[in-house]
Amino acid sequence: MKTIKGGITAVPGFLASGIYCGIKKIKGPDLALIVSSDPCTAAGLFTTNRVTAAPVRLTQNHIKSGRMQAIIANSGNANACTGPRGERAAREMAELTARQLGIATEMVAVASTGVIGKPLSLRAIRNGIPSSVKILRRDGGRNAARAIMTTDKFIKEAAVRLKIGGRTVTVGGIAKGSGMIHPNMATMLAFLATDVRVKPALLRAMLTSAVNRSFNMITVDGETSTNDMVLCLANGRAGNPGFRESKINRAKFQAAMDAVCLKLARMVVEDGEGATKQTEIRVRGAANFRQAKTIALRVANSNLVKTSFFGADANWGRIMAAIGAAGVKLNPYRIDLSFDHVPLVKNGVGLGKAADRRATRVLKQQSFSLTIDLHGGTASATAWTCDLTYDYIRINAAYRS
Amino acid sequence: MKTIKGGITAVPGFLASGIYCGIKKIKGPDLALIVSSDPCTAAGLFTTNRVTAAPVRLTQNHIKSGRMQAIIANSGNANACTGPRGERAAREMAELTARQLGIATEMVAVASTGVIGKPLSLRAIRNGIPSSVKILRRDGGRNAARAIMTTDKFIKEAAVRLKIGGRTVTVGGIAKGSGMIHPNMATMLAFLATDVRVKPALLRAMLTSAVNRSFNMITVDGETSTNDMVLCLANGRAGNPGFRESKINRAKFQAAMDAVCLKLARMVVEDGEGATKQTEIRVRGAANFRQAKTIALRVANSNLVKTSFFGADANWGRIMAAIGAAGVKLNPYRIDLSFDHVPLVKNGVGLGKAADRRATRVLKQQSFSLTIDLHGGTASATAWTCDLTYDYIRINAAYRS
Repeated sequence: MKTIKGGITAVPGFLASGIYCGIKKIKGPDLALIVSSDPCTAAGLFTTNRVTAAPVRLTQNHIKSGRMQAIIANSGNANACTGPRGERAAREMAELTARQLGIATEMVAVASTGVIGKPLSLRAIRNGIPSSVKILRRDGGRNAARAIMTTDKFIKEAAVRLKIGGRTVTVGGIAKGSGMIHPNMATMLAFLATDVRVKPALLRAMLTSAVNRSFNMITVDGETSTNDMVLCLANGRAGNPGFRESKINRAKFQAAMDAVCLKLARMVVEDGEGATKQTEIRVRGAANFRQAKTIALRVANSNLVKTSFFGADANWGRIMAAIGAAGVKLNPYRIDLSFDHVPLVKNGVGLGKAADRRATRVLKQQSFSLTIDLHGGTASATAWTCDLTYDYIRINAAYRS
Repeated sequence: MKTIKGGITAVPGFLASGIYCGIKKIKGPDLALIVSSDPCTAAGLFTTNRVTAAPVRLTQNHIKSGRMQAIIANSGNANACTGPRGERAAREMAELTARQLGIATEMVAVASTGVIGKPLSLRAIRNGIPSSVKILRRDGGRNAARAIMTTDKFIKEAAVRLKIGGRTVTVGGIAKGSGMIHPNMATMLAFLATDVRVKPALLRAMLTSAVNRSFNMITVDGETSTNDMVLCLANGRAGNPGFRESKINRAKFQAAMDAVCLKLARMVVEDGEGATKQTEIRVRGAANFRQAKTIALRVANSNLVKTSFFGADANWGRIMAAIGAAGVKLNPYRIDLSFDHVPLVKNGVGLGKAADRRATRVLKQQSFSLTIDLHGGTASATAWTCDLTYDYIRINAAYRS
């Protein structure tokens, strides 16, 4: 497997575009279109929030068939909590796209991100979709990636290429963050494309597995949005042999999907609202994955821990408190902590001022890891988070104005 | 029941003191002592954090008998994650206090609050405890309240007086916040005293009930500390008739305890780290109390909601998203939201710009309520929270330095 340039249109058979259609107050790309030349096998994962946006419900419905050919996504407006009017707007987005492309409405996925509760401008959508279709390009992935951004500061693309049964297979994707980021999706959209040949049920299982170790292990602010979705479309062009025959091929493709998801997920954390640094939180020695994950995410979500990262303060007591607050049975006197390769706590007790000073140097880096060893089993989990800063407050105290 | 001046020493038979003994880096009261002239019935509730401080474990052990006569508490150091040395320090605090007072070690409760992981200065404790005992005063409650403060900006005291079976009964208490504040205790200490005559099991049940509707319904930052405790000592001096005979008397005393706990809890929120405003979050129309509570606390803990309160932005979409993220089954299209008496959302949909403007005016107040009506049942719950501000970051990015 090798990393290649580009994102979703690095995959043969996919076209994309990104334009400004008038949804955002401040001019900037706000409508993304991704189209496959052929009908695709499709899988999707959606927010666990009980308050779901209209496009989420529509796409959940359309993807039931396991077939899909296009994704239309807007930024600047979440089309959430918009009532029947919002439902109609989401449906119209799908219908207009389908009509312009000459495909069935059910083959179109709809996604939205942005402010909640404001009506979506149908005028913008009606003007925008025909223009989007007109400028579809084989290298339009980057424009599409830009058009799904809200408070994101940089474009998020990833792609890998590998050989499966002698055939070249590509997996590519784009994503957007960057607030309301928490497991079980966030205000996070991620669209993946691949030319692999795969059945819908297997694609879904593999996407779930990849998302569980990537998008579901990142957090910016512990918030879960109404609009999150991860979609994957597979057009089958690679003509690889079926996965049923070869576990090795399946593992190879899973690794490719994992790599693309993880790269995109880590970019979302890196671009977390107001973030100045990223931390990889590794929990080791847990009784099982679920417990390791619970602890990793509890620490990753602790405002006090995240603020101490911002201040480059090796305040490990807050980390111990966050571990203890996870509700997992453990023996505090067996816990070891270290930042990168600097041990800080041994058997639940601090290693002293010299260790604190060395750890502080690590915390001044833009990126570092925190390893938590529970010495209570063999399971592990890794989560990614960013620091909590003045800028997070600044951005979110005045988001709508 | 009437509110009276003072706090814990408003209760007949209780003495207290607060001094500086050398634990805090910056000189300020850091050792509090509360003593009853007579042995008391005692009840305590402790942090649910799996990583508990040495004084928490010691006090849990001592209170098993249901009898207690003194509380020794220090601020400036949590004596948490301090290993066997910390265990010895906590024990020594109890032993020294007991020896000076001429009572059994098991009659002394020990509490600590402050930075985690630093050894507690035994020298300070050894010098401080004899001095504390010497200056015990009948009006020393305020000094004790001051001596348990960490980043708190004001003293937290409350007291009420009522008649039970013709006898005058007093309930008084003190508390400290103000970061790591989250249900199931926080870095929160609260000490209550009363002269009521009550059995240990009943005192515990009544304290639990009061705490569940007060200290367990407040949040500053979603953090649960290693050191939280709420203690209540009852010396029986009031000579009231037993509660077994009268449900009315029991209800009257419960109301008094509730009032003192709630007043202290609300002061903790008001003094939340960096807080500029307080919000009462009322959830109505839930299927049961547990669900109402889960939603109230999910909203109360949302960084995005709290930051929008700081910015006086009536961004109700974030509130809807937080409600949906609570994991409670609900129908979003039945939800109504209002700030104080200003309706903002009806049946899950916003009421428009004029309503937003009116709500913004409410949000500019220092204190307001948010009412969430789920229209899905008859249960309700109320939580209290504060806004998330630049000052929270400033305080916590540099707490130890």
